[in-house]
Amino acid sequence: MNEFTIIEKYFVPLASGKGSLNLKDDAALIQTPLGHELVITKDALVQGVHFIGNEEPSEIARKGLRVNLSDLAAMGAEPFGYFLALMTPSSVDENWFRSFTAGLKVDQELYGITLLGGDTTRIPGPLSFSITALGFVPAGQALKRGGANPGDNIYVSGTIGDSALGLKIAQNEWQHSDSFLLQRYNLPEPRVELGMALKHIATACMDISDGLMQDLRHICNCSGTGAVIQKDLIPLSKQAKTLLSQMHNADEIILAGGDDYELLFTASPFVSEALEAIAHKTNVPITSIGKITENKDIELLNNEGSRIHLSKWGYDHFA
Amino acid sequence: MNEFTIIEKYFVPLASGKGSLNLKDDAALIQTPLGHELVITKDALVQGVHFIGNEEPSEIARKGLRVNLSDLAAMGAEPFGYFLALMTPSSVDENWFRSFTAGLKVDQELYGITLLGGDTTRIPGPLSFSITALGFVPAGQALKRGGANPGDNIYVSGTIGDSALGLKIAQNEWQHSDSFLLQRYNLPEPRVELGMALKHIATACMDISDGLMQDLRHICNCSGTGAVIQKDLIPLSKQAKTLLSQMHNADEIILAGGDDYELLFTASPFVSEALEAIAHKTNVPITSIGKITENKDIELLNNEGSRIHLSKWGYDHFA
Repeated sequence: MNEFTIIEKYFVPLASGKGSLNLKDDAALIQTPLGHELVITKDALVQGVHFIGNEEPSEIARKGLRVNLSDLAAMGAEPFGYFLALMTPSSVDENWFRSFTAGLKVDQELYGITLLGGDTTRIPGPLSFSITALGFVPAGQALKRGGANPGDNIYVSGTIGDSALGLKIAQNEWQHSDSFLLQRYNLPEPRVELGMALKHIATACMDISDGLMQDLRHICNCSGTGAVIQKDLIPLSKQAKTLLSQMHNADEIILAGGDDYELLFTASPFVSEALEAIAHKTNVPITSIGKITENKDIELLNNEGSRIHLSKWGYDHFA
Repeated sequence: MNEFTIIEKYFVPLASGKGSLNLKDDAALIQTPLGHELVITKDALVQGVHFIGNEEPSEIARKGLRVNLSDLAAMGAEPFGYFLALMTPSSVDENWFRSFTAGLKVDQELYGITLLGGDTTRIPGPLSFSITALGFVPAGQALKRGGANPGDNIYVSGTIGDSALGLKIAQNEWQHSDSFLLQRYNLPEPRVELGMALKHIATACMDISDGLMQDLRHICNCSGTGAVIQKDLIPLSKQAKTLLSQMHNADEIILAGGDDYELLFTASPFVSEALEAIAHKTNVPITSIGKITENKDIELLNNEGSRIHLSKWGYDHFA
């Protein structure tokens, strides 16, 4: 197995987009469409940190792509392509590359993107890779974290906490016959269509990757606001509800669990009808879970209106 | 040491450029100057593969940046900024981050670039990082590998083989009192100014990262040509000459050694005066080492005109 053979056989066919120059040059060459800005994000995934390692290589590849597409979605961008820096231990064989690149191909077609460049190298350590994802947004229309206004509603897409539960299943902490939660951990759904639809609607937006409460704090810090969240309004899947009812640390999993890759956004109460239409059109549930406040506290209330105190707000990749 | 504290204290100050959004958002937002294309490249560096690990963190950081800037130089692009995905083992402490980011700062100022985004994470393995470097080039003027014509001269910048010798010094295979060769390995000089100056001159261009002969083959394959190289024309530093005169595998080190990060390019013999002016202006030696041929062979000749056969053409990151 030779570096250049692997690139030729498995990666060049993924690089059909014009900007990639067929992976034949030192760099890619990208034209930004007139009147647009380029949105770029870069996230690394490391075995034992961001995935377990017993997943199919194709699933690992798709997860890597999707967590990056989720960042583009959070900015309201239309995905265009990606770069991949792949670091493989020597145990990785050609079958592994076949499966990994097959996974990339599936999601390239699903999200209309192309491989643009990158590199492959050996690592005397765990399988690791970094993806740089590019998208375009009409100039001046990118969604940011800093635009929330007091009085805005706070919304989340989909359901929260599934992925943190899926991780526990993947780590064999629990047996669970239903594959839904595991799937939510292994194969998050970047809310690309929703993000694009929110461009004229949301005042602030980000994706939830490190825990709902911690990520909400980012929006509040950037916007110079606070927030009140009604815990009972946070949308849970029926599978999560069943499991969480048996657990002592259910709150922590829902509120500080990572990897949801749902959108967390704020919008004026006056656009709630437009949001209903967007939820219907994109087929992604949207739920209001609280309000942005002028007061800079972030409060979490139970259904009796009492404040809940959290010992953990989210995920720290250094902890 | 907390992930967000490290980002705030050491990385946010590096992200003063407008597109970075102060690292506060999910992605960066880049405006391509009118009439320009974006050039993007991405290369990963892994301890034990791309650097030894006993270097100063600041040197490791600068090397990572420079190998990527070298790819931009090979396309004739003006560097703009970069993304960093940093994977650190738990042994890395705050002093390490201080030194690593200080190295980035030095080269940011030297090359006029800014940090645009990325992420930091733990790795249960060797220190690894990937950089995505961005630059701009006037539309249609990027240098590529595929434009060499039969009859073109083949040029290299600087001197060849220093870095492969520096690696052997870094690995303690030899003691050598002069720091020049080690420095050439640890801190390559991306030929940014030269690359930009070659935009209307070179017919094909790339940087030499995996070995002169192997990289020349890339240019020939992309251009549908062959080449004849005069071995004795390949420019060597006086330090390299001294060491190589004592070695049995000197040819392999010069011709197949990696990490030179010099530019390898082709140009019509009619522009040799312009090239002399560019060499003078950029203060980078340019040497003609051979000719592009219609015949698709790549021949290496000694000073008697006999063909030299090589057992190794360059570096394979999987071998």
